[in-house]
Amino acid sequence: MDRPAACGVITLTTDFGHKDPFVGVMKGRIYERFPAARIVDLTHQILAHWPAEAGFWIARSFEYFPRGSVHVAVVDPGVGTARDILLVEADGHLLLAPDNGLLAPVVARRPASIVRRLDPTRLGAFGLGRISATFHGRDIFAPLAAELAAGRCRAAELGEPTSSLVPSWVDDPVESDGAVSGVIITVDHFGNLVSNIDSRWLAGFIEPHVYAGSRILPVRRTYGDARPGDFLALVNSFDVLEIARAEGHAADALGLSRGAPVVVRDAVRHR
Amino acid sequence: MDRPAACGVITLTTDFGHKDPFVGVMKGRIYERFPAARIVDLTHQILAHWPAEAGFWIARSFEYFPRGSVHVAVVDPGVGTARDILLVEADGHLLLAPDNGLLAPVVARRPASIVRRLDPTRLGAFGLGRISATFHGRDIFAPLAAELAAGRCRAAELGEPTSSLVPSWVDDPVESDGAVSGVIITVDHFGNLVSNIDSRWLAGFIEPHVYAGSRILPVRRTYGDARPGDFLALVNSFDVLEIARAEGHAADALGLSRGAPVVVRDAVRHR
Amino acid sequence: MDRPAACGVITLTTDFGHKDPFVGVMKGRIYERFPAARIVDLTHQILAHWPAEAGFWIARSFEYFPRGSVHVAVVDPGVGTARDILLVEADGHLLLAPDNGLLAPVVARRPASIVRRLDPTRLGAFGLGRISATFHGRDIFAPLAAELAAGRCRAAELGEPTSSLVPSWVDDPVESDGAVSGVIITVDHFGNLVSNIDSRWLAGFIEPHVYAGSRILPVRRTYGDARPGDFLALVNSFDVLEIARAEGHAADALGLSRGAPVVVRDAVRHR
Repeated sequence: MDRPAACGVITLTTDFGHKDPFVGVMKGRIYERFPAARIVDLTHQILAHWPAEAGFWIARSFEYFPRGSVHVAVVDPGVGTARDILLVEADGHLLLAPDNGLLAPVVARRPASIVRRLDPTRLGAFGLGRISATFHGRDIFAPLAAELAAGRCRAAELGEPTSSLVPSWVDDPVESDGAVSGVIITVDHFGNLVSNIDSRWLAGFIEPHVYAGSRILPVRRTYGDARPGDFLALVNSFDVLEIARAEGHAADALGLSRGAPVVVRDAVRHR
Repeated sequence: MDRPAACGVITLTTDFGHKDPFVGVMKGRIYERFPAARIVDLTHQILAHWPAEAGFWIARSFEYFPRGSVHVAVVDPGVGTARDILLVEADGHLLLAPDNGLLAPVVARRPASIVRRLDPTRLGAFGLGRISATFHGRDIFAPLAAELAAGRCRAAELGEPTSSLVPSWVDDPVESDGAVSGVIITVDHFGNLVSNIDSRWLAGFIEPHVYAGSRILPVRRTYGDARPGDFLALVNSFDVLEIARAEGHAADALGLSRGAPVVVRDAVRHR
Repeated sequence: MDRPAACGVITLTTDFGHKDPFVGVMKGRIYERFPAARIVDLTHQILAHWPAEAGFWIARSFEYFPRGSVHVAVVDPGVGTARDILLVEADGHLLLAPDNGLLAPVVARRPASIVRRLDPTRLGAFGLGRISATFHGRDIFAPLAAELAAGRCRAAELGEPTSSLVPSWVDDPVESDGAVSGVIITVDHFGNLVSNIDSRWLAGFIEPHVYAGSRILPVRRTYGDARPGDFLALVNSFDVLEIARAEGHAADALGLSRGAPVVVRDAVRHR
């Protein structure tokens, strides 16, 4: 596996929100160890305590960053308990998160990934100081990301490869009777309902129609191909099926949210 | 026209919000091409699909950045359809946005601006890869801004000058019978109602009074010049008339929002 | 007092929110003077016009940044009136804020701090340009922070030491009859009720119980030590007592918010 040099970019994904200094102090800790870091907020508005949403977005976003980036995700309801920390090397990127299913979608999409379990005894070398029971983002993840992004340590020094990791909290789509069934995994800022159905699931359909709530929707190319107010389905820019309302808020209008089932059927086969 | 060297600063203005990784992946794309970029979020909470608000703030904010900055604004309900992209050189700054009225306020305030229409055939030189139908912020604007901010290309190489551009969605104030009539263009975080009436419209008044909703308000110098709870008008720090409530939320208290009419009359003339 | 060289890090804490370009233009002004600045948002969602919350977080956060950082806090209901600006040197950090009680918690916790009152006549040397009546964050704080963080000026050049400053708007906890009484100072993103009772107040207790609203809560080590849905108290990662609900939102569930009283009593003594 190719392993590009650290490029100095660190992305942060959390459920910390923006109202408290939690993300800020993580950045302080990073700059303390690695003044040249370039830090990018991926998002800090993951639904509290729901790693599945973080994993969904990271798995589909990390490729847009330079190879050699370090991606840290802290959605961590088990902080301070006996949960492990994982390091995943995937396609020249390094990803760090609690072992709570968060990184499962990354590994599922990149089977060549190397997954390592952080060996806590190896943290001693980094002088982390006091580690609190409730904020490992600041006390472990941030300093570790800084060391890795600075190129001063490698994932292989931090833990042994493992093939067992906590699975994702959300099942993959299933195909049955010519229909693909998935689930809404997040609602974006515009109210678009984003499913976990990747475009490859649509490859076999001649004229796919999308069933969501009480609606049956055609698949369009872009929002502007529907009239304002009309509902539509489309393969979005992250290559998954989403349900939208042109210049409107699909989630509010349809009364749907995370967890809602989405089914794709072929109009032609049902005639 | 003077044209300072690129200074490496890129500002981002969108209606993407903060809950999804949309802004983050734009930054990933920028760092991929231009590791030394310094990226500033101007705001990502523009009212969805309303370019007028983005144009209002950018036109009044870009001067506070170093000359040679590149300002990218993506409020783009027409993404994926046949809308154009504009590049505007104004006062040593470069601005990029869809041609949907967003940059009209910049050009109106800086008549010496050079406006160019992006020639899509010239994008081939940049190796942009696959361009999605729904996220040009990531696939076109971010890489282009990186090339421009890095000083590796110039606006003149990207398109020919044009004098036609989509006008702003909001009309300029009008003067009639000694009164100036404008409109509320945004409500800020504090609930202040920010109008499109620049201070120069007030120059001819002896004792201006501001009519908004059912109120007639005096013009004060700063919030602290009114008692807590009192309503007031003032010329704010971006040089436009705003309606505020001292230590309170004017928009909620007055029941006014974007689009509400604001009229300035002279108290002296009406006696 | 040791005074480390400026390290180039500037943190920003405001009540400006994220919807307007106010924070962005502060950063523009900083980069204009100090292109190598590394700027960190601590938080911009301080309750509008409430310096106590900003001071609480800054006093407990600045130590996580590299020594030589400059911390700017602008929660400034008195902007444009005769309020002063303070510069505090604390433990190798420099802090700037209006003299409205905001920095009092920093000085209280670091008695060796040097407090200076900004002498407005010394601003002339910096070419600040026009200073608005309503946005000193942009017109004074940002350029001053840039000069200080760039190491081009020192706090001692900007004003004389003072021992009088506006006190905090929130009283310190008090001890009486074996009970410690404090107050909720903020509610964090997760709905945890964060008090102003530092862990040292708990040192004398054998089996501390926390009284808040109609509840009596045990003190646990981390969220995962309670069952989902259970209420608990804990010393959080910023070393203050907080009231939480495991995987839930304590503030909503208890109907408590800022200002609510919190009392710690010893279960043993009351038997």
